[in-house]
Amino acid sequence: MNYHMMAYILGNILRVEGLFLCAPALIAIFYGERKALIAFLLTIGIALFVGTIFVKAEPKDKRIYGREGFVIVALAWIIMSIFGAMPFYFSGAIDGVVNCFFETVSGFTTTGASILTDIESLPMSILFWRSFTHWIGGMGILVFMLAIMPAVDERSMHLMRAEAPGPVVSKLVPKVKATAKLLYGIYIVLTLVQITLLFAGGMPLFDSIVNSFSTAGTGGFSIRNASIAAYNRPYFEYIITIFMFLFSVNFNLYHLLLIKDTRNVFKNEELKYYLFIILGSIGVITVNILSLYPTVESAFRHAAFQVLSIISTTGFATANYDLWPELSKSLLMILIIVGACGGSTGGGIKVSRLIILLKMAGREIRHIVHPRSINIIKLDDHKVDEEIVRGVTGFIIVYLFITLGSFLLISLNNYDFTTSITSVLTCVGNVGPGLAMVGPIENYNFFSDFSKLVLCLDMLLGRLEIFPIIMLFAPSLWRRSYM
Amino acid sequence: MNYHMMAYILGNILRVEGLFLCAPALIAIFYGERKALIAFLLTIGIALFVGTIFVKAEPKDKRIYGREGFVIVALAWIIMSIFGAMPFYFSGAIDGVVNCFFETVSGFTTTGASILTDIESLPMSILFWRSFTHWIGGMGILVFMLAIMPAVDERSMHLMRAEAPGPVVSKLVPKVKATAKLLYGIYIVLTLVQITLLFAGGMPLFDSIVNSFSTAGTGGFSIRNASIAAYNRPYFEYIITIFMFLFSVNFNLYHLLLIKDTRNVFKNEELKYYLFIILGSIGVITVNILSLYPTVESAFRHAAFQVLSIISTTGFATANYDLWPELSKSLLMILIIVGACGGSTGGGIKVSRLIILLKMAGREIRHIVHPRSINIIKLDDHKVDEEIVRGVTGFIIVYLFITLGSFLLISLNNYDFTTSITSVLTCVGNVGPGLAMVGPIENYNFFSDFSKLVLCLDMLLGRLEIFPIIMLFAPSLWRRSYM
Repeated sequence: MNYHMMAYILGNILRVEGLFLCAPALIAIFYGERKALIAFLLTIGIALFVGTIFVKAEPKDKRIYGREGFVIVALAWIIMSIFGAMPFYFSGAIDGVVNCFFETVSGFTTTGASILTDIESLPMSILFWRSFTHWIGGMGILVFMLAIMPAVDERSMHLMRAEAPGPVVSKLVPKVKATAKLLYGIYIVLTLVQITLLFAGGMPLFDSIVNSFSTAGTGGFSIRNASIAAYNRPYFEYIITIFMFLFSVNFNLYHLLLIKDTRNVFKNEELKYYLFIILGSIGVITVNILSLYPTVESAFRHAAFQVLSIISTTGFATANYDLWPELSKSLLMILIIVGACGGSTGGGIKVSRLIILLKMAGREIRHIVHPRSINIIKLDDHKVDEEIVRGVTGFIIVYLFITLGSFLLISLNNYDFTTSITSVLTCVGNVGPGLAMVGPIENYNFFSDFSKLVLCLDMLLGRLEIFPIIMLFAPSLWRRSYM
Repeated sequence: MNYHMMAYILGNILRVEGLFLCAPALIAIFYGERKALIAFLLTIGIALFVGTIFVKAEPKDKRIYGREGFVIVALAWIIMSIFGAMPFYFSGAIDGVVNCFFETVSGFTTTGASILTDIESLPMSILFWRSFTHWIGGMGILVFMLAIMPAVDERSMHLMRAEAPGPVVSKLVPKVKATAKLLYGIYIVLTLVQITLLFAGGMPLFDSIVNSFSTAGTGGFSIRNASIAAYNRPYFEYIITIFMFLFSVNFNLYHLLLIKDTRNVFKNEELKYYLFIILGSIGVITVNILSLYPTVESAFRHAAFQVLSIISTTGFATANYDLWPELSKSLLMILIIVGACGGSTGGGIKVSRLIILLKMAGREIRHIVHPRSINIIKLDDHKVDEEIVRGVTGFIIVYLFITLGSFLLISLNNYDFTTSITSVLTCVGNVGPGLAMVGPIENYNFFSDFSKLVLCLDMLLGRLEIFPIIMLFAPSLWRRSYM
């Protein structure tokens, strides 16, 4: 293990986080929030101090292997969650260490599950930081670091691979650094467009910014107790629905559009399946809830918003879908598992993995009919490497075991079956709301500290797609000398 | 497709079913149940008549390929369920065609989910037939046919493979016919031992017989409204607990014991994992329910009975576990998915498949740490063929998709989330009881006809391990001329 390089990268992460924390500090100054300002400055000081100690010597050997990439990314996310929780704690905005940590992990992992019972009573700068964690976590802090760090080695691809969602991570352009810059460029532009559109429609500037952060990261933290329903304006709902879609498709597609390669955009199988699932779900739910709403348009709007909110793994709400008929609820719970597209800011299993799984199942059925046939799995007309197929299988298996294991641990609370299982599914999928006691108008405050920590672990496992976190728990695997 | 051979085998199945139906007919004579007797004689007549038409000419070409084996087994199970339902319908014991079919499919697939609201009001011969379907379905009617049919071709192994549970089906002895005879021999002896032990403990002979049938097939139909709790005798509960275990382990182990090869019995990995899961679950649940029972013994006894009842996929009840703490309920629901051992009469995913999945996950994790390592998966010290590994993966994927799809269809009833999801899980797993409205003291009468048919399909998919039934729905795959 290259411990020097590990410390160097983790130190840089802390310095980047210190930089990010300046934004809410400025907001605190603007709104004259004294206590919050002190909390932010204190956190910035600690982060920069610790970060600087970590990076004090640039390592000579900058090589990082795949396994080290995994471990570094996992540690980075835990460390940045601990430091990110400090402003909540120092300012007294959130009670209890576990609650502060939960809210921050939920923020960075873009889950959006909250322990807050009265969001609107919090200082503006704290609310800003809370939503900003979504924006940072959406594209990933390591990807950001790769974009700005002066000497990025091509081997840093391992870091990007461990942090970016989806079964296949490809470089958009030949260089890692340029790819990271391009991804953040698209991300920033899309976010700015959404802010503008919301603001132009009459949403206050502050609200436009934080809601766009939450949409961009597919997070779901809102600054209103009633979430997006509080604005009560179809225009905002449509804009946010569209952007939840835009942020949950593969960012490669935007790059393809930039280089005017529309042919490959239309050939993208994941996009087709994703659109099919979305339109199908909206159709079924619109019909299913028609009698609950005054017009077809409002039923459609609420169906579309909730479908996109869940499948993009954002978790905003404009309706309490827990009161909808069971078919709609069941469908939304299945969408929680499905998740967004690979290479987006969304979570869940990812549509591309499901496509590969479906094709694997088809291959087995064909194999029974024609035992001697050799079937390869194709995606976008390219053969999917057997190594990736095996990786997807491994991912799904561990995903299932983690879900069932967490479900057992959450059952210790003795809440009802629906609450226990959907809270785990929604946290592993980085969505936020579930059903019953964790429904869209509820919060996570009532869980025990132990359950909150289990759910934190689930959120991290979900965001980092399991393996980096597992590496942390298998020290015997990475401690060996020949590594 | 060898249609001649298909008709020949299906005709023979019907004749065997006619033979089996003589047993309840004799019971009807013994108890003087006139209406039931007429129903049985009528069914026997129709089965023998149709069966004889089907078999009228012995086909010259007796070759059966893998895919044909699948289709024949699927059709056989549907046909025998239709004929098996006739006595319920003709005797007027059960109202409605769908209810009769549901009860029979539930019987043959050894699920044990019942639409009956007052079991004790039924004629004895009808109750006997109901439990007898478990016994027939447990080991399989095709396996029985192979044991008694004079000219069994070695290629009939395909039939056994399609009907017998588990990822790997091996011949105990070199010949298919001898293997089938041996399996039924062990099955009959174990059943007789259980009948004797129950009878010796004071259970009425009729009850001893039918409860042993239900245990042997890991079915779960009881002739009492309160299931096994009705007898209220710890001795019976312990005996049935032990036999639920014995019928849910791989029957190969009994053959190994017969040939005194104890070394391979102790080496059996599936048995070890199975025991580990059972003992762990009993331990956790005993502690979890301790406060609900007067003595540690009674808590242990109820925990052991319910754990074995669920994991063996029998579904008997001595306690309403739906009133137990959530941890126990969650654990039991996970055991529904796990299921019994391959090569037993039990259902579910099977422990051996889970072991292979766990090892696949472990292989992926090792692959990240040592990318160049080549990892093979071993079971009982033997390399598991990659084809079987892929088959297990395909099975799990289709299992998941079927479960989620059925869950959506059952949600159309608008019953609560817990009822919808656990009814599907327990039917696909061939267990019987679930939670809430399908809890251990409830029944399936309230479901719509559509839902009952969906659950029938799930039970058949579960019992035949999915692929044979899927083949029926993919006619384009088997209709091609070169088959």
